Amino acid sequence: MPRPRHTAQTYIEGILAHNRIMLSQAITLIESSLPEDEALAQEVLTALLPHTGKSVRVGITGVPGVGKSTFIESFGVHIADKGAHVAVLAIDPSSQRNRGSILGDKTRMEQLAIHPHAYIRPSPSSATLGGVARRTRETMLLCEAGGFEVILVETVGVGQSETLVRSMVDFFLLLMLAGAGDELQGMKRGIMEMADALVITKADGENKNQAKRASREYENALHLFPPNPNGWTTPVLLTSALAQEGIAEVWQTIDAYTAHTKNNDFFSKQRAQQQLAWLHESIHHALAQTFYQHAGVKNALPTIEQGIQDNTLLPTEAVKLLFERFQR
Amino acid sequence: MPRPRHTAQTYIEGILAHNRIMLSQAITLIESSLPEDEALAQEVLTALLPHTGKSVRVGITGVPGVGKSTFIESFGVHIADKGAHVAVLAIDPSSQRNRGSILGDKTRMEQLAIHPHAYIRPSPSSATLGGVARRTRETMLLCEAGGFEVILVETVGVGQSETLVRSMVDFFLLLMLAGAGDELQGMKRGIMEMADALVITKADGENKNQAKRASREYENALHLFPPNPNGWTTPVLLTSALAQEGIAEVWQTIDAYTAHTKNNDFFSKQRAQQQLAWLHESIHHALAQTFYQHAGVKNALPTIEQGIQDNTLLPTEAVKLLFERFQR
Repeated sequence: MPRPRHTAQTYIEGILAHNRIMLSQAITLIESSLPEDEALAQEVLTALLPHTGKSVRVGITGVPGVGKSTFIESFGVHIADKGAHVAVLAIDPSSQRNRGSILGDKTRMEQLAIHPHAYIRPSPSSATLGGVARRTRETMLLCEAGGFEVILVETVGVGQSETLVRSMVDFFLLLMLAGAGDELQGMKRGIMEMADALVITKADGENKNQAKRASREYENALHLFPPNPNGWTTPVLLTSALAQEGIAEVWQTIDAYTAHTKNNDFFSKQRAQQQLAWLHESIHHALAQTFYQHAGVKNALPTIEQGIQDNTLLPTEAVKLLFERFQR
Repeated sequence: MPRPRHTAQTYIEGILAHNRIMLSQAITLIESSLPEDEALAQEVLTALLPHTGKSVRVGITGVPGVGKSTFIESFGVHIADKGAHVAVLAIDPSSQRNRGSILGDKTRMEQLAIHPHAYIRPSPSSATLGGVARRTRETMLLCEAGGFEVILVETVGVGQSETLVRSMVDFFLLLMLAGAGDELQGMKRGIMEMADALVITKADGENKNQAKRASREYENALHLFPPNPNGWTTPVLLTSALAQEGIAEVWQTIDAYTAHTKNNDFFSKQRAQQQLAWLHESIHHALAQTFYQHAGVKNALPTIEQGIQDNTLLPTEAVKLLFERFQR
C-alpha cells in the first residue's frame, strides 16, 4: 500500500489542527530513512518547533512482569479523564525484529486506545538505539505541536534504553514489584538513582502488606542515597491498577514535581541541558558513524582489537594507526 | 632544571630492574606532551606491555573529610608490610591549577612515603580529564612493569573522575562517614552502585556505635539494589585508621573478591572490556577533538547552540549544518 505523502504545509496545518491522522502520517514520515522524506520531515518539524515544549514528559520503566501496560493504561485513562490529552510512546530497540512488539496492536491498552483524549504510538523500528532515540524525540515534538499536554515514554528496559529515556523526559518513574528480591534480577544497576519516583505496583489483596513493607524499606534506602541536586525527594508510592488505587497520587506527585522544579528553575534548565546534550550526542554519533564505516578503519579494526585484547598493542598506539588509515 | 631523557632501552631495563628513579622519569616522559617524548613513551610502554597486568588495581574514592589520605596511608602500610609492593596514584583533574595538590609533597602520607615497598605519585597535571585518564592508565602499566603488585588509584571525586577510575580498576572502594546524612551532600548520585565495597571510616571512640548503625543501614539498603552481575555482594566494612582496626579486613575483602572473580572469569573479562572501552573512548575523544577544533565548526557553534536553546533549530538540522562546515 503506497504511503500518503503530503506537502509540508499540509502536515503542519493538520497537526496544528489536532488532526490525528495527519499526526500519524507525519510520525511515519519521521521514521522513514529515505533522504527526500528526511528533508521534508525536518521542514515540518522546524516549522512546528515554536508549538512544542509545552507538555510534561514522563518516562516509565520497570522489568517485564511489573505490570507496565496495566499501569500505563490506568494512569493514561486517569489523565485523559481529567481532560488532558495524553500520548503514549515507546522505546524498544529490539522492535526492528518484531515491529510493534511493545505496544503491538494496542490490545495491551484497550481502554486507553479508544479514549478520545489518548494517542498510542508503537516504538519506531530502527537498527540502532541512536536512531530510535532521535525518532522518539522528534515524535514527542510532533505530539506536543498536535496538542498533547502529557507525553508518556515507555521503555522496555533493554540495554541503554533507560538512560536514553531519562535524557528526554522531565520526570522518570520506576515501577517495581514488592517481591522477595527476585524482581531485582532484571533491573539495571544505577537505575534507582535515576528515578524521580518509585511506584510499587500490584499493591492489592495478599500483596498489600508486603508492598507496604517494601515501600518503607525503599524509603529508608533512598535516604541513604546522595540527595538530588534539584531538591526533590524521591517518594515511594503504592498502586493497584486492579483496585484503581494510588493512580491519582502518582499524577499528583508529578504535578508537585513540576511545580517544585518550575519554581526553582530546574525544569527549564534540565530541558535546555537535554537539548544541548541531544545536539552533542548527535554530533558524536555522526562522527562515530563516519569513522567506523570508513573502509580502511573497518578492515583494520578486528586485528587492532585483537592486539588490544592480547595486550600487545596500546590503545594510544591503536588510535594513531586507525587515524592514519582514516585520514588517508 | 633540564629533565633527563634516556634511550628507550635505558627506561625499559631500568623499570624491569625495579629502579624507582627510572620509573619516575618514565612517568614524567609519559606526562609530557612534546611529540618526541610521546613517541619515545609509546616505544617504552609497548616494550613493557608483556610485563604489565599482573597487579590488583584498586580505586578509592570518598568525599573530602572522609579521611582518605589517612585510610590510604594505613591501608598502604598494611599491604606493604605484608611484603607486597604498592603504588599510589591519584586522579585529580583540578591539579593543573595547583600541581600535586592531591598527593602534594607526600606529607599527607608520611609513613607510606618512606616505606621501601611503597611508591607515591601525584596526579598528572593536564588540562583535560581525558588526558589525565590516559596518563594514569599508562602510569599504572609502568608501575606494574616496575614490580608493583597492588596499585591504589585515588580520586578526589570531582566531576567525572569516579566513573573514570571505576573504568580502570578491578575493585572500587567507596569510603564513607557515619554522619547524620550531611556527608552525602558531596557525593555523586549513582556512585554507591559502582562500589565493590563500602568502608565506613573513623569508626572509633564516640563514633563507633553510630558507625555500626550506619553499617547495618547501608547493608539493608544494598540489598534493595539490583544484584551485581558478577555475583559479588558489596559488603560494608568499618575501619579506624586511628585505632588501626578493620584495615586488614579491607584487604581480605579485596583478596576474596579477586579469588571470586578470577574463579568465575569476571576478573579477566572486566579487564578485557576495560581495554576495549579505553580504545573506543580514545577514538571518540580524538574524533571530537578534530571536530570541535575545526575553525568552521568552532565559529558556527555558539550561534547553533543558541538556536537549540531558543528552540528555533533542531539538533538533527544543526548536525547537518555543522558537518557541512566540517567537511568543507
